[in-house]
Amino acid sequence: MSYSKGSARLNPRFAGIKTFFRCPQYQEDLKADALILGVPFDGGSTYRSGSRMAPSRIREISSLGRGFHMTSQQDLFQTLKVCDGGDAPVNPISLQKTYQALEAFYQPLFKTNKKILSVGGDHSITLPLLRAAHKTYGKLNLVHFDAHYDTYPAAYGDEDYHHGTFVRHAIEEGLLNCVFQFGIRGPLTSAQDMDFIKKHQDKIKVFTMDDIKSSSFQQSLPQIFSQLKTPTYLSFDVDCLDPAFAPGTGTPLPGGLSSYEAQQVLRQLKIPKLIGADVVEVSPAYDHGDITSVVAVAMMFEILNLMAG
Amino acid sequence: MSYSKGSARLNPRFAGIKTFFRCPQYQEDLKADALILGVPFDGGSTYRSGSRMAPSRIREISSLGRGFHMTSQQDLFQTLKVCDGGDAPVNPISLQKTYQALEAFYQPLFKTNKKILSVGGDHSITLPLLRAAHKTYGKLNLVHFDAHYDTYPAAYGDEDYHHGTFVRHAIEEGLLNCVFQFGIRGPLTSAQDMDFIKKHQDKIKVFTMDDIKSSSFQQSLPQIFSQLKTPTYLSFDVDCLDPAFAPGTGTPLPGGLSSYEAQQVLRQLKIPKLIGADVVEVSPAYDHGDITSVVAVAMMFEILNLMAG
Amino acid sequence: MSYSKGSARLNPRFAGIKTFFRCPQYQEDLKADALILGVPFDGGSTYRSGSRMAPSRIREISSLGRGFHMTSQQDLFQTLKVCDGGDAPVNPISLQKTYQALEAFYQPLFKTNKKILSVGGDHSITLPLLRAAHKTYGKLNLVHFDAHYDTYPAAYGDEDYHHGTFVRHAIEEGLLNCVFQFGIRGPLTSAQDMDFIKKHQDKIKVFTMDDIKSSSFQQSLPQIFSQLKTPTYLSFDVDCLDPAFAPGTGTPLPGGLSSYEAQQVLRQLKIPKLIGADVVEVSPAYDHGDITSVVAVAMMFEILNLMAG
Amino acid sequence: MSYSKGSARLNPRFAGIKTFFRCPQYQEDLKADALILGVPFDGGSTYRSGSRMAPSRIREISSLGRGFHMTSQQDLFQTLKVCDGGDAPVNPISLQKTYQALEAFYQPLFKTNKKILSVGGDHSITLPLLRAAHKTYGKLNLVHFDAHYDTYPAAYGDEDYHHGTFVRHAIEEGLLNCVFQFGIRGPLTSAQDMDFIKKHQDKIKVFTMDDIKSSSFQQSLPQIFSQLKTPTYLSFDVDCLDPAFAPGTGTPLPGGLSSYEAQQVLRQLKIPKLIGADVVEVSPAYDHGDITSVVAVAMMFEILNLMAG
Amino acid sequence: MSYSKGSARLNPRFAGIKTFFRCPQYQEDLKADALILGVPFDGGSTYRSGSRMAPSRIREISSLGRGFHMTSQQDLFQTLKVCDGGDAPVNPISLQKTYQALEAFYQPLFKTNKKILSVGGDHSITLPLLRAAHKTYGKLNLVHFDAHYDTYPAAYGDEDYHHGTFVRHAIEEGLLNCVFQFGIRGPLTSAQDMDFIKKHQDKIKVFTMDDIKSSSFQQSLPQIFSQLKTPTYLSFDVDCLDPAFAPGTGTPLPGGLSSYEAQQVLRQLKIPKLIGADVVEVSPAYDHGDITSVVAVAMMFEILNLMAG
Amino acid sequence: MSYSKGSARLNPRFAGIKTFFRCPQYQEDLKADALILGVPFDGGSTYRSGSRMAPSRIREISSLGRGFHMTSQQDLFQTLKVCDGGDAPVNPISLQKTYQALEAFYQPLFKTNKKILSVGGDHSITLPLLRAAHKTYGKLNLVHFDAHYDTYPAAYGDEDYHHGTFVRHAIEEGLLNCVFQFGIRGPLTSAQDMDFIKKHQDKIKVFTMDDIKSSSFQQSLPQIFSQLKTPTYLSFDVDCLDPAFAPGTGTPLPGGLSSYEAQQVLRQLKIPKLIGADVVEVSPAYDHGDITSVVAVAMMFEILNLMAG
Repeated sequence: MSYSKGSARLNPRFAGIKTFFRCPQYQEDLKADALILGVPFDGGSTYRSGSRMAPSRIREISSLGRGFHMTSQQDLFQTLKVCDGGDAPVNPISLQKTYQALEAFYQPLFKTNKKILSVGGDHSITLPLLRAAHKTYGKLNLVHFDAHYDTYPAAYGDEDYHHGTFVRHAIEEGLLNCVFQFGIRGPLTSAQDMDFIKKHQDKIKVFTMDDIKSSSFQQSLPQIFSQLKTPTYLSFDVDCLDPAFAPGTGTPLPGGLSSYEAQQVLRQLKIPKLIGADVVEVSPAYDHGDITSVVAVAMMFEILNLMAG
Repeated sequence: MSYSKGSARLNPRFAGIKTFFRCPQYQEDLKADALILGVPFDGGSTYRSGSRMAPSRIREISSLGRGFHMTSQQDLFQTLKVCDGGDAPVNPISLQKTYQALEAFYQPLFKTNKKILSVGGDHSITLPLLRAAHKTYGKLNLVHFDAHYDTYPAAYGDEDYHHGTFVRHAIEEGLLNCVFQFGIRGPLTSAQDMDFIKKHQDKIKVFTMDDIKSSSFQQSLPQIFSQLKTPTYLSFDVDCLDPAFAPGTGTPLPGGLSSYEAQQVLRQLKIPKLIGADVVEVSPAYDHGDITSVVAVAMMFEILNLMAG
Repeated sequence: MSYSKGSARLNPRFAGIKTFFRCPQYQEDLKADALILGVPFDGGSTYRSGSRMAPSRIREISSLGRGFHMTSQQDLFQTLKVCDGGDAPVNPISLQKTYQALEAFYQPLFKTNKKILSVGGDHSITLPLLRAAHKTYGKLNLVHFDAHYDTYPAAYGDEDYHHGTFVRHAIEEGLLNCVFQFGIRGPLTSAQDMDFIKKHQDKIKVFTMDDIKSSSFQQSLPQIFSQLKTPTYLSFDVDCLDPAFAPGTGTPLPGGLSSYEAQQVLRQLKIPKLIGADVVEVSPAYDHGDITSVVAVAMMFEILNLMAG
Repeated sequence: MSYSKGSARLNPRFAGIKTFFRCPQYQEDLKADALILGVPFDGGSTYRSGSRMAPSRIREISSLGRGFHMTSQQDLFQTLKVCDGGDAPVNPISLQKTYQALEAFYQPLFKTNKKILSVGGDHSITLPLLRAAHKTYGKLNLVHFDAHYDTYPAAYGDEDYHHGTFVRHAIEEGLLNCVFQFGIRGPLTSAQDMDFIKKHQDKIKVFTMDDIKSSSFQQSLPQIFSQLKTPTYLSFDVDCLDPAFAPGTGTPLPGGLSSYEAQQVLRQLKIPKLIGADVVEVSPAYDHGDITSVVAVAMMFEILNLMAG
Repeated sequence: MSYSKGSARLNPRFAGIKTFFRCPQYQEDLKADALILGVPFDGGSTYRSGSRMAPSRIREISSLGRGFHMTSQQDLFQTLKVCDGGDAPVNPISLQKTYQALEAFYQPLFKTNKKILSVGGDHSITLPLLRAAHKTYGKLNLVHFDAHYDTYPAAYGDEDYHHGTFVRHAIEEGLLNCVFQFGIRGPLTSAQDMDFIKKHQDKIKVFTMDDIKSSSFQQSLPQIFSQLKTPTYLSFDVDCLDPAFAPGTGTPLPGGLSSYEAQQVLRQLKIPKLIGADVVEVSPAYDHGDITSVVAVAMMFEILNLMAG
Repeated sequence: MSYSKGSARLNPRFAGIKTFFRCPQYQEDLKADALILGVPFDGGSTYRSGSRMAPSRIREISSLGRGFHMTSQQDLFQTLKVCDGGDAPVNPISLQKTYQALEAFYQPLFKTNKKILSVGGDHSITLPLLRAAHKTYGKLNLVHFDAHYDTYPAAYGDEDYHHGTFVRHAIEEGLLNCVFQFGIRGPLTSAQDMDFIKKHQDKIKVFTMDDIKSSSFQQSLPQIFSQLKTPTYLSFDVDCLDPAFAPGTGTPLPGGLSSYEAQQVLRQLKIPKLIGADVVEVSPAYDHGDITSVVAVAMMFEILNLMAG
């Protein structure tokens, strides 16, 4: 009625019921190439909680989003029909039940071959999404932006699933072909933190902050692209960015990427079959001026452009 | 798809695309007794701007809202079918064009005889709504919560319409039968600020903070009720509350109502024909912990109960 | 070495490693009448998370605490030897494992007959503490400050334990003689929310906000005191306070107690055998100027005085 | 040039170089009945520092101030010619040099018989002002709003002057006839904190929070007024207010006055010779939405009305 | 009286009535080479409002400013007599009346040949200033720092003037010789956003973020300088900076300049006739720790050095 | 009892009484190679105060700290036994008494030859620490990260000791062999600010921001290392970082180092006898999301690695 999907040139960006990028809400009879969904779960956090509030805040802030990509000259929402799929089912009390609900929920979604971009929540949400995607696409390539390896062991005795373990589980469960990590930096809890990486060095290629800053980084990219020709998933943890650029996150770690550097890496990637992605670990209560949501939206825009590719 | 309108017992309150009180979005084929609409306009503010962001934030926070009123024992959303009507059309650059757009937009809405609750925006938005309501209902009674009379003169030379003038214009335009004001307090700019009130004292009955705190306040209520039997509009400016309770507002003024006191006044009102209402002057950028939005939602709940009553 | 437990007249309050009220850290060879412990768990929250950070923040802020109670003229820390017992074991990923760990941890503590004051965490932590206390003391009386009954049903299908259910479970498990609730207010999700209360009205006496504000409230207190002669537990959810006084909390609800009103109720209570207590639901990321932690410390002080009394 | 002292009806309140209440800056050739001065010193604080920033922030916020007092019907700035006297000289590194500079600076000011309202700064600034006023007026009556007695002993060994000692020093130095304290509440550091009060109970009359809340408070006021006929100084520490109303302060203490209650006490005072006053302990970095500055401005307005009265 | 214009070595920077850079307030009989003025208008904002509060906040923060430029070895305030000219007249309700008032106000100012630095306000304020400058200086060169082209079309139907249109209007009205834009980045609303730029590519030279980051950027500067020999105006929108460096702004856009990069570009510019400039789009309510005002002051300092140069 | 020093893999990082990096509290019978101490004094600040609160906040945030350094492959807490030594004695009212207390307190500490890392407090605390270290080690080399030279003259007439003077005093008192400064940038108060540097250019080597950004910076490092073979002290003022990375500081100055750049400089340093260090000027009340404390912890980690190296 009162809410038009029209251009922000007609309706102010701050007006209306908020959907991701002001896209229409998905309904069965709508054609959509890509869906954006919220996954408001923070029960896997080991330090600051609060990322359950991220989908709502990012929906609001994404009304600032625009569609024409200056570098690629691509008009995103013309190229890719994107809908807001609402929020996926979660159980804020139980990680295990959330995992079951998410896997069950995402499985038919991936079967439709729509591109799926999910907005966390903490990083524990990625594993059930990979499991669901694997059912449709088989082994996946993973492009992973993060300050942390996320191959860490169980915590608190025997808590094998938390926001720092999804890469380990995904490798161990045979969901992944290869992993490319960008933005990794120390300190680590101990040298053992690298054991898993070393053991699986045929599968996992790490680009630390030092690697990305080095002059030889550009030359290493073509080698990546040759491996990303099969179905690929991209997971973007906002803590790959320096806390100056993404203060509102669960485990901030100085010495990270700037927004521009992250954009540059994303823009140079060539991922012809990017079937799914997520942006996780935005924690609005620790943000200010919503700049972490603002940069999350910018990264979602790059990812959607890769999907539209 | 993923977003159920069901109970928060099933879906977390923080999940899903946000509508006012998690109500369904209004569509032509939906039956609705009442609509809630946002009016994201702050172009009439004379001190802090920012209330254009209130509808979005209040939508999000209203997901905390529940439906059963403990005092009246009324189950609101069972009694009154409420929908989120989206946001009304505004032009952030021009007050005059916004006035025209709002009056045109609200006129057919009031004609439907639906109860209409609007969420500002600054207090300048009330005048075009009264004009529109007057077209359907004729002269209205006004119940007005505010720190300020809102009968002030033109500002900046000849700016006759701003967020402190709607009562004056509504009286002068013949839209109102009578006005009951609650929460008024000084200081004023000058003694002349009371001239309009004195001139129209047959129409305007003011209950200052001192009046409300006095022991005789209860006794004055029955006299009000006898005058509220015809169509009535209620306008709730959150600055009637003390800044401790509503810090996120445009022109905060100490010495105001507590949330409990405001609830008490609202619960004692008897307004059989409450045809429209608004809650205005929430300015989220000046809020903290969203407590001003939280209290705005509580007041919206009382108003909807009056509408259902 | 550098940190003296001496008076703030010698060492600034802001200096030193922070313990609750600058009390010594408990060690086996220390005599202590009362222990204060943190319970940094927020995995039972259904709206805003973040109360896991409360024990740290409240430790820091409690360095502002003083010991002489002006009304009772009691010099608290002279009367009651209080130690900081550190934080209880929690598992941030699993409510069930946290329940087991907490019950096991608290059981020997209660056996020592020390008074135990716990600092949450969300309100789900109270149930395992009551279970542990029951092992030593048998059926307990419960004095309960809250905006909510906390007798609510399972959430999200079958999640029977969360931060709004401890009173129901404690009654059903036979842990309680009687319950006195202060500060309760609506709205409720539905009329069914009161069914449990009605069914157990022989055990549960509710003082709503309206009751506390009424002139007859004082007269109802003596009747309470006659029932509080056996071992009693006190649970203080900061959301019994109005959001103006306690903005940093998980589910803020307007129309609540002022700090002064809460102090008045606490000061009028007579609880000769107050064996344990908790202060819960402080969520520092939503606080400002730390005023919620400040008021939590004030309430902890009243509770310790009741324990010393 | 561009900054007119005219009405906010002509120039927006947020515009222009900020002076207290938009008053003219004092110059030798200006007639002024009263001066407002900032005293930006926080070197006497024992907990949170930061009140050095208060004069600037309060100048800005006071542009919201208006002049007509609704209760007294007095048009303040017509009755009393008020100027902004700028900031008094302070030395942020040294309390002793600040004391000397302040006493020397204020002495000729009081000699002019202008009313002087000072804006702190922490409460340590009051003593040199009392010393200076005493040179002109002899023994003063003190009306003192505070959560604390401010008769405390030396801190940190031998630091005899800090923000909690001015009443003790002023009594001991023979500067005061009598003291009326409003808003006092515990806890205290020890029972000895009351020794000074008891010893000087002929001079010091304390109204605790409980006293002010009691029904007999009104009856005690006439007895005060009889003693306030000689030159009187009023010192308003914003921590007399509850932290909900004044979060941005150095040592917040729950259970305090509401803004309305403080206004009521101030409005009932009769002080024919109010020769000076201060509002202290606003600490903007701990404030939010500037509500502490907003309430400080409201209290300054009441004080100026008492001065004009 | 109490406020000395002397060195911060004598008076603390936080003391006194705040003027830009602690400069004297302009009066007719003062000699001044340059004036700094506030333009507190945010009625042209299309997303976050609030920049009307910027002049006040920047005045306060600019007291941190110093005068000796380490790179150029220029002692600014010795070289250039700078005064605070107060705030320009604005009408917060009407953009059109503000445009008229600003153009009329600035015209005689530019006639004096004083350098004029204005502090917004949103970016809609620049157009009337260019119109006024054009009256004195004829066609101007424009050096423009921004994330956005500001050549956008009318919004909301027919709102031809808002904060994203001043370059288009200035070109169309024949006010400009040439435009150099720095910091531009996407996304854009559509490819049409570049049409105006392409059409006027003889006049407008754009340096996107990618251009500035490229190794060839330095080589392109001499070509600019040859065109900046006639009267030139510089407009600095703080959103050219990345939101990490300038969070408090109306339309933040990730991937922007760092403060150091912006300083480097400004320091390399050679603009012998820089007759006017502005720094716009600071929105204090969205800032934290005042870092956006701090960086605005740093940019103002560079601009004043260019004016002095 | 409840608080284990064990791995965060067992106990959540947010749990327990907070010590620096979760290290044991120092006691006489504990072996320790290094101590971390708080110095909560802000009485030397000339702009924003508040750094007295930094040790508490940094203790809390340092629980996020880990021990394995990815670049050096050093497992810090295995290599270096680190304890939390509590807070050093300070007098918040008197800089001179604080200087005496600090010098007396640190002298025996340095005599033990333990490495000492101190956490300010403002930068005035460094001088008494250097004096104490000099007693044990004789003339020291100083590695100094800062935006400012800290060789400034007396302030406010004759205040010779404040947070901008420690380098001057240390040179004049003969405590230092040589000084290497990193991150220096303008503007300065006047050209005279460089006189001291020029006069002592044999001793003081300055690397401005421009120097660090230049391509020749790497080549200048070996020359430094040859001079750092004798006992060396490192002082890290967080304002060497850009305000985007360290907003919560006393005198923020744009154009500074990124966190990554600061880490790079620290990692390239070779300081075989780093006997003491400090991290100063964190002011938590001006921080957000605790990112300044987070980066301070990261810098403390680099410094401890240098000490262990």
